[in-house]
Amino acid sequence: MSFNLATMLTTAAATYADKPLVHAGERSWTYAEIDELSGRLAATLDALGFEPGDKVAVQLPNVPQFLLAYFGILKAGMAMVPLNPLLTAPEVAYHLHDSDARALVTFELFADVALTGAKDAGGIPVYVVNPSGAPLAGDARPFDELLRCDDTRLLRPMSPDDTAVLLYTSGTTGRPKGAELTHFQLYMNCTTAGELFGVRDDDVSLGVLPLFHVFGLSSVLNIVVRFGASLVLVPRFDAEAAVAAIERHRCTIFAGVPTMYVALLQHDVAGRDLSSLRAACSGGASMPGEVIRAFEEKFPGVVVLEGYGLSESASTTTFNISAEERKVLSVGKPIWGVEVKVVDELGRDKGVGPDEIGEIVIRGHNIMKGYYKRPEATAEAIRDGWFHSGDLGYRDEDGYFYVVDRLKDLVIRGGYNVYPREVEEVLYEHPDVVEAAVVGEPDDRLGEEVGAHVVLASGARATAEDLIEHCRQRLAAYKYPRVIHLREELPKGPSGKILKRELRG
Amino acid sequence: MSFNLATMLTTAAATYADKPLVHAGERSWTYAEIDELSGRLAATLDALGFEPGDKVAVQLPNVPQFLLAYFGILKAGMAMVPLNPLLTAPEVAYHLHDSDARALVTFELFADVALTGAKDAGGIPVYVVNPSGAPLAGDARPFDELLRCDDTRLLRPMSPDDTAVLLYTSGTTGRPKGAELTHFQLYMNCTTAGELFGVRDDDVSLGVLPLFHVFGLSSVLNIVVRFGASLVLVPRFDAEAAVAAIERHRCTIFAGVPTMYVALLQHDVAGRDLSSLRAACSGGASMPGEVIRAFEEKFPGVVVLEGYGLSESASTTTFNISAEERKVLSVGKPIWGVEVKVVDELGRDKGVGPDEIGEIVIRGHNIMKGYYKRPEATAEAIRDGWFHSGDLGYRDEDGYFYVVDRLKDLVIRGGYNVYPREVEEVLYEHPDVVEAAVVGEPDDRLGEEVGAHVVLASGARATAEDLIEHCRQRLAAYKYPRVIHLREELPKGPSGKILKRELRG
Repeated sequence: MSFNLATMLTTAAATYADKPLVHAGERSWTYAEIDELSGRLAATLDALGFEPGDKVAVQLPNVPQFLLAYFGILKAGMAMVPLNPLLTAPEVAYHLHDSDARALVTFELFADVALTGAKDAGGIPVYVVNPSGAPLAGDARPFDELLRCDDTRLLRPMSPDDTAVLLYTSGTTGRPKGAELTHFQLYMNCTTAGELFGVRDDDVSLGVLPLFHVFGLSSVLNIVVRFGASLVLVPRFDAEAAVAAIERHRCTIFAGVPTMYVALLQHDVAGRDLSSLRAACSGGASMPGEVIRAFEEKFPGVVVLEGYGLSESASTTTFNISAEERKVLSVGKPIWGVEVKVVDELGRDKGVGPDEIGEIVIRGHNIMKGYYKRPEATAEAIRDGWFHSGDLGYRDEDGYFYVVDRLKDLVIRGGYNVYPREVEEVLYEHPDVVEAAVVGEPDDRLGEEVGAHVVLASGARATAEDLIEHCRQRLAAYKYPRVIHLREELPKGPSGKILKRELRG
Repeated sequence: MSFNLATMLTTAAATYADKPLVHAGERSWTYAEIDELSGRLAATLDALGFEPGDKVAVQLPNVPQFLLAYFGILKAGMAMVPLNPLLTAPEVAYHLHDSDARALVTFELFADVALTGAKDAGGIPVYVVNPSGAPLAGDARPFDELLRCDDTRLLRPMSPDDTAVLLYTSGTTGRPKGAELTHFQLYMNCTTAGELFGVRDDDVSLGVLPLFHVFGLSSVLNIVVRFGASLVLVPRFDAEAAVAAIERHRCTIFAGVPTMYVALLQHDVAGRDLSSLRAACSGGASMPGEVIRAFEEKFPGVVVLEGYGLSESASTTTFNISAEERKVLSVGKPIWGVEVKVVDELGRDKGVGPDEIGEIVIRGHNIMKGYYKRPEATAEAIRDGWFHSGDLGYRDEDGYFYVVDRLKDLVIRGGYNVYPREVEEVLYEHPDVVEAAVVGEPDDRLGEEVGAHVVLASGARATAEDLIEHCRQRLAAYKYPRVIHLREELPKGPSGKILKRELRG
């Protein structure tokens, strides 16, 4: 028995050879082209002496070469280690060293940092995608060197349990760890989630999520290829770039994080034709109910469906499958073949309802094999077969799940649990609030005090006192924030998620 | 990461709790009932001290208890060893011993033979399904003992590469060997084939193929459960029982072997309402083109789609996906994620067309892990990642495959290859011929002579000489049969396939 995730590409290429798989900038690449070029890359890696099971790091923004590297590495039976382009040189070195990467593919904008990092990690070869054609520094090699071999047939048979992607994540604690995602796991996730999302071969997906992140990799790229759809790559999200891409390519679906929805809400789209859009899915962070309502009002015909997942769960774990069956504020129900429970500290099942908040644990085909070379962290994360997500939530009577907060984001004020999301929901109800993040602040008397970091709409006049009063009227005394920081913007991670750890300072 | 094939049942039961999963005789069992009872069986196996990975043999005809045993064994993380109810005691002992089975589930009709076999295999416990309620002989235990535990939640997390079913097959040579079929492989096969066959949750499948055979297990039972359909169990195929079941339960689909189609063709169905039937799939042996044409004429609205597969490929490997895209006489194209090639003795690719006959080799998610405890036979069967089927065939320009014959059935007459199927096709064109099987007969001068065993329609008057003349006019001189044996019936295997080895004597 053998299974290689890249079968998704070769099979789709047999059916959709001349159909565009990727639109990027002024160019498009067909399924046949991506299949052929990734086949060349696989054969070249093979010819260069890399071996099945070797790791190759890929540090690219959303450019077509990401697909060539990804599918080429898979076809050759190796595993991809996607890296954030914004890593510093020591971080690059850490990831390369920790993952045992034998080569790095990077982009001209980050090449200097990448080369420094690669040198510190033992001097592995660095291949640079340089669309500008500018000469490459030092030991850098042009990406095209990886496309030299012209035998494009390699598709190495793998075990379904072999690692396809090593995805770095902080998990709940500590330094970044490589979650080992397998061929089977990634196949099952995009197939199952794509079916629930109703993806078809005439869909055009707006690719604004970074492909080096699990959400973009599994729920955008893999789904597109699995169902023979097309993908419009946007190298860096901003609202105008997204709107322009939707108009130009008649995008029908997109996946994004809440901050992207907020940005689109703030953007003037008068006179723009966005009628092709039919559905959007949200994940990566909790979506304020107010944002969903406002978004669907502003973009009629688009339904926003919320899901939930993590790097370790190869993206989708639960999903709201349709406008008819969704529950706003809920992240939906587990996808096919996945079990989700809410448990207390001892692993005992909690009851039903919002009073029974506990840790969300997950079991099924979507859970990683483990953290690379970290048996202890793996044993800590996967206990009795259940992956412990580090997220707090509850289940309702109908089997829908609600993510209340990250366990580590919980604020404990004078012994009472305050769930930041609940406070944020109230802040978002205030007409002047664009973004809000609630965190615990050290307090001598109470242990922690509730603080909020808020971005106001341009021209808005609300004061910190106004916002505190707004919350005081709507929340129990122990919950409302006593401190409000008005800010120009909030720090965000690569996928656009607000980074609370930076707010906690 | 974990995946248990029984997830198909638990997931379907969550959606279709009160829907009938099985109709058998006068009773029906809902999805919830089968899920609960198989859960009891799993918990009981666990409580009795059986362990994950243990093998449990199941020797049952098409009765509902087959489903309880199958899914119970899977839920407990054990592997099922399906056995043909018609095995002799020494054969039972051989299979139990070879598979390391730790228990046997059997049926009252075969209990004596089974008990003798189990005693010879070290005295493992034998559980007997006895619908008659008659007292059990010797050490036999009632099947209901396996349903004692009432905690029905066990669904042991497995690796997708763990063995779910150990399926005995002769393969190309030698004594029966246990093909190790995995959770992943069986999941992929029924999902992929069921999608191609267009199975829906309102389908009612006629279960005439034995469930202990790969075709019935994967292409009938697993598909039904995977897509939330219903299954009508017919314990032993005969045409009238099949027609009665179709009428009573409004069956929409069925899978069968060519001899079943022939039997239905011979059966008087005047005045019977078989209008519910929409599609049928055929496999297990080559289907004469004449039979397909006559069948579709007799049963208007039914399309017959031919596929190809083996025990080692978890059933479906190639399939004709629809009336529009099929090619009669072809077995269709490879299913999603499966590669098929035609190669010569040295493993080199053959060209395209009927002059380029070679061995069919297969690679993909549908190929077994190996033969249980037989690394040499496994290495002989799976070479360079390709499973060697032992079947002869060719590929046409459009990528459709044609199975010409079993390699071992090939007749070599005076140095020329005669493909029995080609001769059989010509025999079936004769109006008096109901069944035909062509085999090589030892011949001093030519090495082998072409012989045919033929069953005529009742009342038909054709003589052996008439049939030889019929063939002589239509086939090259070296191909037409010189010897015709007119017979009352032809020997058949459990799935209804004609057993040529018995004709060769």
